[in-house]
Amino acid sequence: MKMQTLAIVGVGLIGSSIAQAARARGVADRILGADRNAELLEQARRRCGLDECYTDVGAAVRQAQITVFCTPVDHIADQVAAAALSCAPGGLMTDVGSTKVTIVRGLEKRLPSRCRFVGSHPLAGSEKSGPGHARQHLFEGRMVVITPTEKTAPESLLEIKTFWQSLGAKVVEMTPEDHDAALARTSHLPHLVAAALAGGLPPELRPLAATGFRDSTRVAGGDPALWTGVLMHNRGPILQALQALEEELDRFRAALDAGDRAAIDLLLTQARRNRDALGN
Amino acid sequence: MKMQTLAIVGVGLIGSSIAQAARARGVADRILGADRNAELLEQARRRCGLDECYTDVGAAVRQAQITVFCTPVDHIADQVAAAALSCAPGGLMTDVGSTKVTIVRGLEKRLPSRCRFVGSHPLAGSEKSGPGHARQHLFEGRMVVITPTEKTAPESLLEIKTFWQSLGAKVVEMTPEDHDAALARTSHLPHLVAAALAGGLPPELRPLAATGFRDSTRVAGGDPALWTGVLMHNRGPILQALQALEEELDRFRAALDAGDRAAIDLLLTQARRNRDALGN
Repeated sequence: MKMQTLAIVGVGLIGSSIAQAARARGVADRILGADRNAELLEQARRRCGLDECYTDVGAAVRQAQITVFCTPVDHIADQVAAAALSCAPGGLMTDVGSTKVTIVRGLEKRLPSRCRFVGSHPLAGSEKSGPGHARQHLFEGRMVVITPTEKTAPESLLEIKTFWQSLGAKVVEMTPEDHDAALARTSHLPHLVAAALAGGLPPELRPLAATGFRDSTRVAGGDPALWTGVLMHNRGPILQALQALEEELDRFRAALDAGDRAAIDLLLTQARRNRDALGN
Repeated sequence: MKMQTLAIVGVGLIGSSIAQAARARGVADRILGADRNAELLEQARRRCGLDECYTDVGAAVRQAQITVFCTPVDHIADQVAAAALSCAPGGLMTDVGSTKVTIVRGLEKRLPSRCRFVGSHPLAGSEKSGPGHARQHLFEGRMVVITPTEKTAPESLLEIKTFWQSLGAKVVEMTPEDHDAALARTSHLPHLVAAALAGGLPPELRPLAATGFRDSTRVAGGDPALWTGVLMHNRGPILQALQALEEELDRFRAALDAGDRAAIDLLLTQARRNRDALGN
């Protein structure tokens, strides 16, 4: 893929990493950054070699063949709807939000039919944030879920797919609903559980929290404001995933209550087999 | 500390790492390894430069000023009790088990009074196992809990404390009961939760499990047999810790059910503060 102008709205970790990857791989002649925070924008400009920077989102979107919204999930739909007024004919918009139903189905109702939007979610990131943690190789070999709907034109889908592939990612298509149900289990619930483990640790026990506890709770170091948005968007599927987890925990509880060594061993053996299948 | 002979019983990751650290720091003139598995013993000999190797535990213990039992928690008490018959006058025994009440209180009743044993638990390790993953620096700056009882002689306590410090560790004293209650929360419960998350993941969702899920479930890759022993030893405190976690999860559930953004934000903010206090 080679486009003339790529616009990134929101120059945090993900937005800045997209800019770096696109620059390194020659995906666009010009890369524009837009962010309400001028200081962050200047940091990102220096770190990612952005060609032009705007605090007015419309000014960037107007020039771009593809615009990627890398803002908190709470803001994406409103920003895309507002940007639609500025979007050039043939311009395509996407996002990187961790939830898709609220954003994609909401925009389906709001966007004028001439505007093209396809939801995306790159499964890459970190509990860190900001352009200072951007990494040019962040998307290489990583999965990006794109979530077309019945209304998505095949050429829009292909264009977004090609865009992410040109950053080195593997692309998979899912409905917004399937995406949210899956991510509730693979990401949102683990975040909630990590937060419950970390939040429930009495301060006097901190010195006794070693590598295992730190690994298990690392994601709880993520930005609470971002994650509150995610959990609020995806409440239903997360509550269902929590229910499924409680049933797993009940199996452990029953085995421990009964002192049933064979049952514990079986549960741990199944868990290890599943975990080993993921790699490191 | 400088002793003539150190014996390591069980030459897995922890035992081999102790041998390497003791060798590198000149803690003992001779380091003996004992293991029922001759092949593992040979691997450890080559990797850690063990001076002599024995498949008969008594033959090693007989010669040692300090013997460290690095075997699964299920086996430690029986092995220490059996070794007591061979222990040289003045010999001191310790272990590295992740549970202390069952081992230490059990041995209090079984050991002849001339035999000296002090329980230890180094908070270091990995989901990996075997001498191939041994690391000479494993204990540097890491916490080792030692668990004296009313019957422990002050000079035994000092000797064990000095031993771990000589490997670079920081030593803290706790009762076996306090240790097990604390570790239930900082290690055993997180393991159980990681296993529940990993065990409950439908195989078709594996491609969507990214860094967050992998971090959160990494410990579930640990040896099921070892961990079954730990969970069985510490059933009561783990069930209490599980109860406390369920109460935390209920707070999230209530906030999600109610769509209470402020409550979710508060829970995540408290969790992040706790997590940040641990460092990386």
